[in-house]
Amino acid sequence: MDLVTQILNGDRLALARVLTHIENDTQDGRAALATLFPHAGKAHLIGVTGAPGTGKSSLVNQLALYFRKQNKRVAIVAVDPSSPFTGGAVLGDRVRMRDLSGDAGIFIRSMATRGSLGGLAQATAGMTQVFDAAGFEIVMIETVGAGQSEVDIARLAHTTLVVEAPGLGDDIQAIKAGILEIADILVVNKADRPGVENTEKALKSMLELSHPTQHIFSHHGKYMSAAPQVKDAALWIPPIQRTISIDGTGIPELAEQIAIHAEHLRVSGDWAARERARLESEMDAVLQETLVSQFRERVPESKYDEVMMQVYKRSLSPREAVKMLTNGRAK
Amino acid sequence: MDLVTQILNGDRLALARVLTHIENDTQDGRAALATLFPHAGKAHLIGVTGAPGTGKSSLVNQLALYFRKQNKRVAIVAVDPSSPFTGGAVLGDRVRMRDLSGDAGIFIRSMATRGSLGGLAQATAGMTQVFDAAGFEIVMIETVGAGQSEVDIARLAHTTLVVEAPGLGDDIQAIKAGILEIADILVVNKADRPGVENTEKALKSMLELSHPTQHIFSHHGKYMSAAPQVKDAALWIPPIQRTISIDGTGIPELAEQIAIHAEHLRVSGDWAARERARLESEMDAVLQETLVSQFRERVPESKYDEVMMQVYKRSLSPREAVKMLTNGRAK
Repeated sequence: MDLVTQILNGDRLALARVLTHIENDTQDGRAALATLFPHAGKAHLIGVTGAPGTGKSSLVNQLALYFRKQNKRVAIVAVDPSSPFTGGAVLGDRVRMRDLSGDAGIFIRSMATRGSLGGLAQATAGMTQVFDAAGFEIVMIETVGAGQSEVDIARLAHTTLVVEAPGLGDDIQAIKAGILEIADILVVNKADRPGVENTEKALKSMLELSHPTQHIFSHHGKYMSAAPQVKDAALWIPPIQRTISIDGTGIPELAEQIAIHAEHLRVSGDWAARERARLESEMDAVLQETLVSQFRERVPESKYDEVMMQVYKRSLSPREAVKMLTNGRAK
Repeated sequence: MDLVTQILNGDRLALARVLTHIENDTQDGRAALATLFPHAGKAHLIGVTGAPGTGKSSLVNQLALYFRKQNKRVAIVAVDPSSPFTGGAVLGDRVRMRDLSGDAGIFIRSMATRGSLGGLAQATAGMTQVFDAAGFEIVMIETVGAGQSEVDIARLAHTTLVVEAPGLGDDIQAIKAGILEIADILVVNKADRPGVENTEKALKSMLELSHPTQHIFSHHGKYMSAAPQVKDAALWIPPIQRTISIDGTGIPELAEQIAIHAEHLRVSGDWAARERARLESEMDAVLQETLVSQFRERVPESKYDEVMMQVYKRSLSPREAVKMLTNGRAK
């Protein structure tokens, strides 16, 4: 029996092996992805992001435990930006294991970023798809930090949680502004800490700035889910949910918000739209890679090196060089 | 007289216009870049990055003032992750202006990230090249946050400064680990704050973890600049420099470290290596873009849409779809 069939039969060892293939971007991993592709497309993908110190990991743990009580199978992909030498990813796994190990309905996979952040996004997308095909109803993707990786998650996930916490300093506001745009739900974790009102107030005023149409909602008093044709994502105003992840306060309410958002996506047509956007972005990545590799086969290396030498000497600009090598117009 | 000639003659208005063209990725901007390309390649590109709250911007201001005293022309590209609606970039410009305005030897350009972070990296690279061609000896590129943007800067810059500050919380360590790998010089700013020894100690122990060869250096007692053939970047151990940017403490010493690093790059051959790596990565970007645009011209949109429909329905995986569309092997 091959690995893919084993995965579809619920074999955890086979699953772990394929995930490793995907992390290392091997031929076997690519083949497995293609075979699993028709089986995916059912899971609810939940991105969880926020600055270090917000307690994201324990929040993800608590959510996982809660979803397990609802008898849903849960997978977690934890993307850890610690560099290889700190072993952050491995440590993270061990800490999590205390709460969640021994449960066959849960699977946790950590990834260190290593060198290539682009490759990481691709690997995360691949793993998500494997979990999806393997029948995990919930796939949570957790990242630390702020930047391109968060934007990539937002593209990948149906529902993106941005986690904040009181007392991380006013300067963190700069990050919040950028990250707010990808948030479907805002979580104020560590809500027992002093300053929670200020954090919430700051988030609210930023939401008002970014969602000037909010008055529509207060007027209607509920989400406009009555209009199934409406596909404008702006019609969802991210709710703010307080949690205390160490004791589980607010977790049921947060899970409820997540369910409401999933329903909103389905009713508005955004679920399908996000699905399509994800597939298009995957297409683009594979297309670029394929075209470049066909180019490399077509153009002799000596010819390429010769042109590069002129670029190094600055007698040819990169755009002129590409124009020469592709025998065409470089825009 | 065209814009490019005006720029080479030191016309600031022409410079500002071309920068706007490059930010908007217009045909004129691309043409200007190609014409300016042979004139670039002389500036020392300095990346400055670190978490919010470390005082990066005032550090960059102080460094700029210091370089001006050495009669060097200085350009600053400040990449601001604030979203468009906060107007962060504009505000940033105004705050800076108080110290640096009215000086013809300095030019500051802020950019908000807007939607596209990939486009931002490309725009930053383009602007850097324009400043370089326009005769600015120092080009500083400043970014906020941690993630892909920092890695892109490191690729762009000859010398990357990573700025830390005491009292930003222990959790910030997670970010530091990843960011340490791109640092050529570590700056502990706000060094008059309590906890500066702890911050420095933490950085030192992380450096020891990431540079296990350090004992070689203590033995020799100086950088191994006597070996001009050596191109291993690992031979540079990032020094740690304390600064207090609000009063300028440590700025001359930091500028000296930057000069030492530039000298190290030249002697070791890394200066040329980083130059080549930058040009190769620019080539790759233009090549991908060109190949995709040629593909779009070649493949009828109706054909593409038809295949995409099968991908949406999950009857074709993205890799199989690309294989069909390119009539070739998709790896």
